Amino acid sequence: MHPVPMAGELQSLELCLERHIPPQDLAEVKRILYGGETRKLCLPAAALSSAQERDFELQGYGFDAAPEQLRRPRIVRVGLVQNKIPLPTDTAVAVQVQSWHSSCLHVAALHRRIEEMVEVAAMCGVNIICFQEAWSEYFLLVLIEELCSFVQLAKKYNMVVVSPILERDEIHGGTLWNTAVVISNSGAILGKSRKNHIPRIGDFNESTYYMEGNTGHQVFQTQFGAIAVNICFRRHHPLNWLMYSLNGAEIIFNPSATIGTLSESLWPIEARNAAIANHCFTCPINRVGTEYYKNAFTSGDGGKAHHDLGHFYGSSYVAAPDGSRTPGLSRTRDGLLVVEMDLNLCRQVSDKWNFKMTGRYEMYAAKLAEAVQPRFTPSLIGEEERSAQYNQVLHRK
Amino acid sequence: MHPVPMAGELQSLELCLERHIPPQDLAEVKRILYGGETRKLCLPAAALSSAQERDFELQGYGFDAAPEQLRRPRIVRVGLVQNKIPLPTDTAVAVQVQSWHSSCLHVAALHRRIEEMVEVAAMCGVNIICFQEAWSEYFLLVLIEELCSFVQLAKKYNMVVVSPILERDEIHGGTLWNTAVVISNSGAILGKSRKNHIPRIGDFNESTYYMEGNTGHQVFQTQFGAIAVNICFRRHHPLNWLMYSLNGAEIIFNPSATIGTLSESLWPIEARNAAIANHCFTCPINRVGTEYYKNAFTSGDGGKAHHDLGHFYGSSYVAAPDGSRTPGLSRTRDGLLVVEMDLNLCRQVSDKWNFKMTGRYEMYAAKLAEAVQPRFTPSLIGEEERSAQYNQVLHRK
Repeated sequence: MHPVPMAGELQSLELCLERHIPPQDLAEVKRILYGGETRKLCLPAAALSSAQERDFELQGYGFDAAPEQLRRPRIVRVGLVQNKIPLPTDTAVAVQVQSWHSSCLHVAALHRRIEEMVEVAAMCGVNIICFQEAWSEYFLLVLIEELCSFVQLAKKYNMVVVSPILERDEIHGGTLWNTAVVISNSGAILGKSRKNHIPRIGDFNESTYYMEGNTGHQVFQTQFGAIAVNICFRRHHPLNWLMYSLNGAEIIFNPSATIGTLSESLWPIEARNAAIANHCFTCPINRVGTEYYKNAFTSGDGGKAHHDLGHFYGSSYVAAPDGSRTPGLSRTRDGLLVVEMDLNLCRQVSDKWNFKMTGRYEMYAAKLAEAVQPRFTPSLIGEEERSAQYNQVLHRK
Repeated sequence: MHPVPMAGELQSLELCLERHIPPQDLAEVKRILYGGETRKLCLPAAALSSAQERDFELQGYGFDAAPEQLRRPRIVRVGLVQNKIPLPTDTAVAVQVQSWHSSCLHVAALHRRIEEMVEVAAMCGVNIICFQEAWSEYFLLVLIEELCSFVQLAKKYNMVVVSPILERDEIHGGTLWNTAVVISNSGAILGKSRKNHIPRIGDFNESTYYMEGNTGHQVFQTQFGAIAVNICFRRHHPLNWLMYSLNGAEIIFNPSATIGTLSESLWPIEARNAAIANHCFTCPINRVGTEYYKNAFTSGDGGKAHHDLGHFYGSSYVAAPDGSRTPGLSRTRDGLLVVEMDLNLCRQVSDKWNFKMTGRYEMYAAKLAEAVQPRFTPSLIGEEERSAQYNQVLHRK
């Protein structure tokens, strides 16, 4: 069961709009849908031709902030990598991962693919790069040797690397975690972020092989800004984004692997809402392609057996604190999205909207503590519970 | 300074897409942008012609749920009303509001306008109707007589009425609240919901005339479902929607008054995200038009004096728990949006996605209680704080 061509998949929503909406309306449509036309980055010709040769999409956009009197601009470039697995799912693990520094017999293998995308990112001046969820295969263990390779890579390119892997926790009985490792541009491993909320939905019932994470909401202070990693399903929980923000995150990555029929209408909404609600940048990244498994499987939802999870629709993008966003990468192709951002925009938007100031978090901390009690009584008022007060007032008149 | 025509304002994003995107792509564009094509409601011809005569837009859509074995469908129709003020802002209050049951010399006056829209809603079988924020003028007091009128209206049409007003709280020193009153179809006043978060942004610095609400997150159990009212700026706070949901809300109304340059790129995101995150229906409603004031005013943001707040862009819509939404009403015209929904969809989506089950609210209650402490130390890890553990592991290899 090898991957089939993506016939019938719309390549990109944004390209479709660009092609058909007349120029006099397009700017207004983009303003309403995306908060405006995002500035196009001028990327090096060598990077563009390299991406073309290697058959992946390369797009660049920029978000600006107003000049300030007391702070210099804080310009950072992030890179988001989305990709298919280059070999069929039943290929042997060793061939799939094709260790980084060994001789590359299979040039199409996964690690070689990621390596070449990182090279292009370096040519584009990327400071922080993030891959999709469990990028080294959905169900494959990343070996410690590979982390060593990333440490070399981070130093070589002076780049912070966010690498989402499957983690085997040997000091806790071999527990499996869905984890992202954050490697500083100095080569130091800053720490890791484990997936906090585990889906229990049909084919994505991950509760049989991952536990809910226990690393909280650590934020990593890098040379290029305070970053956090919010893996996949965590995206659906607004409180989860909020906690990263309360810990100081300026950029929150959301490495994901999700399919069209399940989540595509949620995709443009959730991470963008998080950027708005928390005055920060968010970077959702999604896998690409359809992966076929030799043996048909069922999903615990009463449906028929099938050989694939569905189409991973890519569409990685970056949302800014002012509610604007970049177009998405392709729904069908590998891609690298390079986004320049002035981190000063976070505080500028916060100073305007003040959601933290008006958030009344004390009240919610107390309310939430009540709501989780087994004997919680919802505040639900029907005809019989309503206070007599209102009707007394009416009768007074 | 009278209102000027809306030259240059795009009438509707959705109409623009319908007009220009070719049919073979339109369905896919709608699926990605809106979660699919919402079913069009067949509305009575008399209602349509009545709306046309009275010069307001009338649109109807429906959300379906799967049939269940143990519950009957719970079909409800909600009506969302968006409108301009029909007379200039400097018209005398008595003329503006034009009391409901007095002789209607000014047929264009505000209350007559709302009354005729409610009549059409009744013709469309609406069960619950909601108006925009402080609908009886942004800065005008609603008199208790008007509430009496609404009680009559609710009984006459067997309709739950959600009426957002400016409330004068006489038993608390004349405090002003931004409040919505919920009137049952029986004519009983079920209660009220006060705006919990008050904006402090330029022209919308409402902190000088409203206090933060103190009615919490009461949900009202009506004959047509459990409803809540989340006024305007509260829309920006995800925790706020969550608390209504934890109290059992199936439909959350969001009566608003907000302008294009401030919030239009946030508008399609926030209420829809709340519907997704909380497995409920959300109904954001926005005012229409540009209102001019005789005396120029400044906004405390260093900008120039001006005579208007900007363009209130309408675009009221309904979002469903499955992430889909209706098109928006016009950006420029008065309108009534009638939406039929099967409330069974809330639990069906909840049973699929399980955000409440996977929400880990205990953890967030504790974290939030920490975060509001004056001495809170954010969990922010830099090169110097990172644990030696990771690099030890690397050195072991």
